Amino acid sequence: MSELLLFIRLITSFYLVLVFVSLQANECLLTWNDGFNKQAILSFIECVSNPQLETFIPEQERIAVIDHDGTLWCEKPHYTQVSYILKKIEDLLPFPSDWLSNHPLKKAATEQGINHELMELSLVTHMGLTVEQLTQSVKEFMSQTVHPRFGLTYDKMVYQPMVELITLLHQKGFKVFIVSGGGIEFVRTISEEAYQIPQERVIGTSLQTWYIGEPTPHLILVPLLVLPINNGSGKPVNIQRHIGRIPVLAIGNSDGDIEMLSYVQQSHRLSLSIFIHHDDEEREYCYDEGATQLLKLVEEHPQWLKVSMKHDFKVIFPIQTNNR
Amino acid sequence: MSELLLFIRLITSFYLVLVFVSLQANECLLTWNDGFNKQAILSFIECVSNPQLETFIPEQERIAVIDHDGTLWCEKPHYTQVSYILKKIEDLLPFPSDWLSNHPLKKAATEQGINHELMELSLVTHMGLTVEQLTQSVKEFMSQTVHPRFGLTYDKMVYQPMVELITLLHQKGFKVFIVSGGGIEFVRTISEEAYQIPQERVIGTSLQTWYIGEPTPHLILVPLLVLPINNGSGKPVNIQRHIGRIPVLAIGNSDGDIEMLSYVQQSHRLSLSIFIHHDDEEREYCYDEGATQLLKLVEEHPQWLKVSMKHDFKVIFPIQTNNR
Repeated sequence: MSELLLFIRLITSFYLVLVFVSLQANECLLTWNDGFNKQAILSFIECVSNPQLETFIPEQERIAVIDHDGTLWCEKPHYTQVSYILKKIEDLLPFPSDWLSNHPLKKAATEQGINHELMELSLVTHMGLTVEQLTQSVKEFMSQTVHPRFGLTYDKMVYQPMVELITLLHQKGFKVFIVSGGGIEFVRTISEEAYQIPQERVIGTSLQTWYIGEPTPHLILVPLLVLPINNGSGKPVNIQRHIGRIPVLAIGNSDGDIEMLSYVQQSHRLSLSIFIHHDDEEREYCYDEGATQLLKLVEEHPQWLKVSMKHDFKVIFPIQTNNR
Repeated sequence: MSELLLFIRLITSFYLVLVFVSLQANECLLTWNDGFNKQAILSFIECVSNPQLETFIPEQERIAVIDHDGTLWCEKPHYTQVSYILKKIEDLLPFPSDWLSNHPLKKAATEQGINHELMELSLVTHMGLTVEQLTQSVKEFMSQTVHPRFGLTYDKMVYQPMVELITLLHQKGFKVFIVSGGGIEFVRTISEEAYQIPQERVIGTSLQTWYIGEPTPHLILVPLLVLPINNGSGKPVNIQRHIGRIPVLAIGNSDGDIEMLSYVQQSHRLSLSIFIHHDDEEREYCYDEGATQLLKLVEEHPQWLKVSMKHDFKVIFPIQTNNR
């Protein structure tokens, strides 16, 4: 559907359902501040889930895809998976050493974005594990390691307003998928508990596994990437592979989400692309690094929503313990 | 769970729920003949879905994986996808020709099993298409091309008792996935209409796709296989990639299903593996070709069910028009 047409229809729909949505706004998305963005999101959900409206979408096509790092949980000072990998490298070293501390591998891996060095460290630390071993190890890390600034364990570093949005989408018959550049097994360890998103609705970057039949059947991770890496143009590719149809709602926060946000606009249904802007230095972080292309694109596409964490989110984390 | 323990528990459960299941048998699986296999299947479903029983499995883990060719629909005289591919090759030739008729490629591709020649023909006929073009082309083929023996269009060549079993599994809170050696896009064209299985619950052999951003975002198929091919040990690998946990029910009919049927036995929950035996020459086909290893294995594992199409199925197809 053409973007102009979409925009007109979305705007028209706004007015059609505005009264309904205004009433609803008092009850839904309580951790979102009232305003244009909250109204727009509630309008979209109402437009596609109300069978009385022309814009209604049958449940099987009511699919949402949401990025993980920086969209559903905190990605600073660097990706949580990077913290995990760096810890595993330390464990791998034969004696206590600060070998990695000043190593270019570490410097590159802690930069924003998915680069070769991060992949190299990831392959090294995951290889030879069974899927169960990796899952167990990640779960322990997430529940025991504390974020350096906020003092919460990593499994609590999720954005409460986004959790609430996912709950609402589930209530309204959406199938919600996480589409992350991070490792698929890594994200699956928290998807059910943190977001009520079943593991089969997590799409991520995958390592190849080998099936070993003896003595009992099990799978081990081998140091080969399943292509494409689930970032940038890899996101629509893996969405097709896992889901098989074009979603109608996409949410992301970085340049690696551009293709996914563009892709949902190709749906023949009403669709919505949302950009989460990190502009809250006090309660979280303020940065455009890694999102400069996307920011430009959002300016060019007025029908894409630009959500401000500072202005649209009443709270950031489920328990805000420390705002240093 | 050890197989012996499982068997004992399954048998014990049989008696516990036998009265209930006997009552239920009059209402469920109407196209299955009464007997041990129908009882065993109903018992298993009752054991894992009744929250009163010790063997109860929470819904998020109540996952079934079912092979497609020869398990849910007819795979003779050769795979339906092979018929599709051969027709596409004819269309590709610059002038009417029986070039392919006596070609070794055709001979190999029409044999039971997934071989190099079949893959080669598949890559050639799919490359360069958009996902939508492939889907459209397959849908037309399925609804217009008639099976040479039964006179039904291919989209009607499904086994009615299996359709009924899937319906029952859905009613009992199972998530049912098709896990096919066939092409993922190919199987998705009929999964929703024929089995009410949503497209995201189809796992198959995949071709790589490329994301093309201009003029509008779309995906095209490129002649590269995503490894592993979804057959044999590739099935557990792709089950992990798509689903992220070990299923509790697996159904298959050929040697390519051995690893999948073995894999579900590794669940720490009560699990069941079912083999569909093609032993009905009159109403369908009678063959052990491509299933000889599996047949041996089933003899060695008395807790695996061996379903006889001749004795357990009251009917084969939804509309049996011709039993030549």
